[in-house]
Amino acid sequence: LRREDISAFRQTYLSLHPMDQASVFVSLDPSERAGFFDYISAEEIANMYQNLDKDMQLAILTEMDETYAGDIINAMNVDNATSLLSKLSETTRNHLLQKLNEAKKADVEELLAYPAETAGSIMTKSYLTIRPATTAQEVLEHLQEERPRVETIYYLYAVDESGRLAGVLSLRDLLTHDPSERVDHFMSTQPVTVRDRDDQEDVARLIQYYDLLAIPVLTEDEALVGIVTVDDAIDVLEEEETEDVGEFSATRGATGEKVTAFQAAKKRAPWIVLLMFLGLITAGMIEQFEETLEAIVLLAAFIPIIMDSGGNTGTQSLAVIVRGLSTGALDHIGVLKIIWREFKTGMMIGLSTALVILLLIIFVFDHAMIALVVAVSIFSTLSMATVIGTILPLIINKLKLDPAIASGPFITTMCDILGLLIYFSIATFLLDYL
Amino acid sequence: LRREDISAFRQTYLSLHPMDQASVFVSLDPSERAGFFDYISAEEIANMYQNLDKDMQLAILTEMDETYAGDIINAMNVDNATSLLSKLSETTRNHLLQKLNEAKKADVEELLAYPAETAGSIMTKSYLTIRPATTAQEVLEHLQEERPRVETIYYLYAVDESGRLAGVLSLRDLLTHDPSERVDHFMSTQPVTVRDRDDQEDVARLIQYYDLLAIPVLTEDEALVGIVTVDDAIDVLEEEETEDVGEFSATRGATGEKVTAFQAAKKRAPWIVLLMFLGLITAGMIEQFEETLEAIVLLAAFIPIIMDSGGNTGTQSLAVIVRGLSTGALDHIGVLKIIWREFKTGMMIGLSTALVILLLIIFVFDHAMIALVVAVSIFSTLSMATVIGTILPLIINKLKLDPAIASGPFITTMCDILGLLIYFSIATFLLDYL
Repeated sequence: LRREDISAFRQTYLSLHPMDQASVFVSLDPSERAGFFDYISAEEIANMYQNLDKDMQLAILTEMDETYAGDIINAMNVDNATSLLSKLSETTRNHLLQKLNEAKKADVEELLAYPAETAGSIMTKSYLTIRPATTAQEVLEHLQEERPRVETIYYLYAVDESGRLAGVLSLRDLLTHDPSERVDHFMSTQPVTVRDRDDQEDVARLIQYYDLLAIPVLTEDEALVGIVTVDDAIDVLEEEETEDVGEFSATRGATGEKVTAFQAAKKRAPWIVLLMFLGLITAGMIEQFEETLEAIVLLAAFIPIIMDSGGNTGTQSLAVIVRGLSTGALDHIGVLKIIWREFKTGMMIGLSTALVILLLIIFVFDHAMIALVVAVSIFSTLSMATVIGTILPLIINKLKLDPAIASGPFITTMCDILGLLIYFSIATFLLDYL
Repeated sequence: LRREDISAFRQTYLSLHPMDQASVFVSLDPSERAGFFDYISAEEIANMYQNLDKDMQLAILTEMDETYAGDIINAMNVDNATSLLSKLSETTRNHLLQKLNEAKKADVEELLAYPAETAGSIMTKSYLTIRPATTAQEVLEHLQEERPRVETIYYLYAVDESGRLAGVLSLRDLLTHDPSERVDHFMSTQPVTVRDRDDQEDVARLIQYYDLLAIPVLTEDEALVGIVTVDDAIDVLEEEETEDVGEFSATRGATGEKVTAFQAAKKRAPWIVLLMFLGLITAGMIEQFEETLEAIVLLAAFIPIIMDSGGNTGTQSLAVIVRGLSTGALDHIGVLKIIWREFKTGMMIGLSTALVILLLIIFVFDHAMIALVVAVSIFSTLSMATVIGTILPLIINKLKLDPAIASGPFITTMCDILGLLIYFSIATFLLDYL
């Protein structure tokens, strides 16, 4: 790029929304980005850079020289800077920390000291505090004169001399009250707050529940140390969702762009092997019925149908319970009533499925007695599968674990074992007629 | 309650946060709530009521007389009122609509006309508009004098004479600019906007992506007709997640408190029957290998292990791809490279799982040749299962369907069929040695 192009490019680029700057930026290849760093300053890039997703931030950090990287991190919000630094090796992190100015360094180090996924680790230190005795007019004038560069000016935090949170007022309250009134006369003195060591998901849920734009974070001694804003809350909820997907199949930490096949296999294989052990129980059980199978080999053909129907029905009940627990729709129904309703549902699904399979096996495989065995087994299995799929997540929920993650494969396996046990028992019992 | 108790109760109750009022309210039983309606007015209850979850709103609505219900809906925000009314039967809805005042009725009817899950159906009509030619000072004075009762005063929408959106400014911009400056000199003239018929999830994603507090909703002709606020965006994202869980197992609409077992079974049975048909393919395939099975009945015992391992590995790949698509982590890698990495991962998982099962079958079942057949089948199946689990969601994503919902059971079934085909083919081929 020649000089005049650079100036034109700078003007166009810097007028874009930071998120759109980010889209352009990631579409460049590393050599183009190298030029980029020459004619756009670290301060100008910081706002865009902190909006990139974390893997991308890390990848791009390696392309910069250390001074530029330090300048960027210095210009980033404290929460974003902390989140990035926490992903680096200790050596690189300490190196970059030395490049920050004193105030930023102290803030980042404070946040880094919190365990991951706590309120403290995701909060920002960039918010407005006022004294309770100020008047509305004074605060407004202060805002207009100082033009504070904080994350939100829509909530103001009234703090007493010892740093304790005395109340919260919104900019809306401020504008709609008599300018001469003192803020402690109309601020909310019992705001919703969280502790710095609270779990990040609980914090995000509170923001969602109370429709807040931000929530103050307090220490054990009620001292205000930060706030968590609604945009970070959304990202936390999103992150927890994708984590759930990952944990469900043990693929968490095995999905990034830079993960090698070997690293992914190392994370994923133990889960497959563990579930295979559960499968061995099923294998051992089928082996017990070897004589029955020897008499009627065709029985083996319907093993998959028994397994799948049971597993799918149990998983449906799981989905109903998990959804009910998360929306609170089950809060006002007794446990026994839920189980009873699911059991009735299971019997009805079982009955209709059994009728269909009965006719299908008679017509397709032309074997009426096997059709009957499969149909009766399907009916019994599906009725019981709903009960397993209901009770297991309720127990897991009582143990304060996440039922969506913990119960899936166990329900499937339990339904498998139960279904095949019913199937081969009935078949053995009716062996003489088969 | 006696008169003095009522007044004390009113005072305590009304000083609570609306969300906490809601918690108290739902803990009452219907007879207690009946008294409640006598000594708390519809206007006082409205803010709490609109925060209840929708099933609860509907249940409680039936406990009120029609005038009280109409008064509550009249006092609710337009978006919440619409959302509630859209859940009622047409007769009840029209009845209640007659109870609303003219302005509210017109707004609600406008929103009701939008298809469900569009921006129009979730937007609020409660926002501030200004003229572009006003000065910052004039707007501020207007805010302070009028104290408008709108959902947010933090974004102001500048609208020209024809109702078209000319720009957006934040209250922050307003406070930090010279009071005598005209707002059209510093407002954002290219704000992020959505169309009234856009999907609600896309709207919520934009709010999340750009860290907005609200987003303006425009018609085809650029006329401003409403805004969607961040708290509604969070709820939409949450709702879409639980819908996904429900759709995944066809339990959507079958989870409410009031759903009978028969209604639930009617919704859920078709899915189980459909998946059973897929299972019939597997059954037909196993039948083709009846001779092999007759020779070695023990082969049947390992059908579940082959099925489960293949299905679980395919599902892991699905989770990796779904997560990669949603975080954008796969955007910068070619499709072939992704497939190749998953295939390598599958081979490594397959190799380790095969070694474990080889040793286990030799020691537990004491049958070396069957152990070898199972191990080789597991290795081949797992290598291929990752490819199926990668390609299928990528195709479904290209077809603009949600891969998380559409691919689960199909991947499992395809991996089942493939795995058992490999297993029995190898077994048949090696029959003489078994």
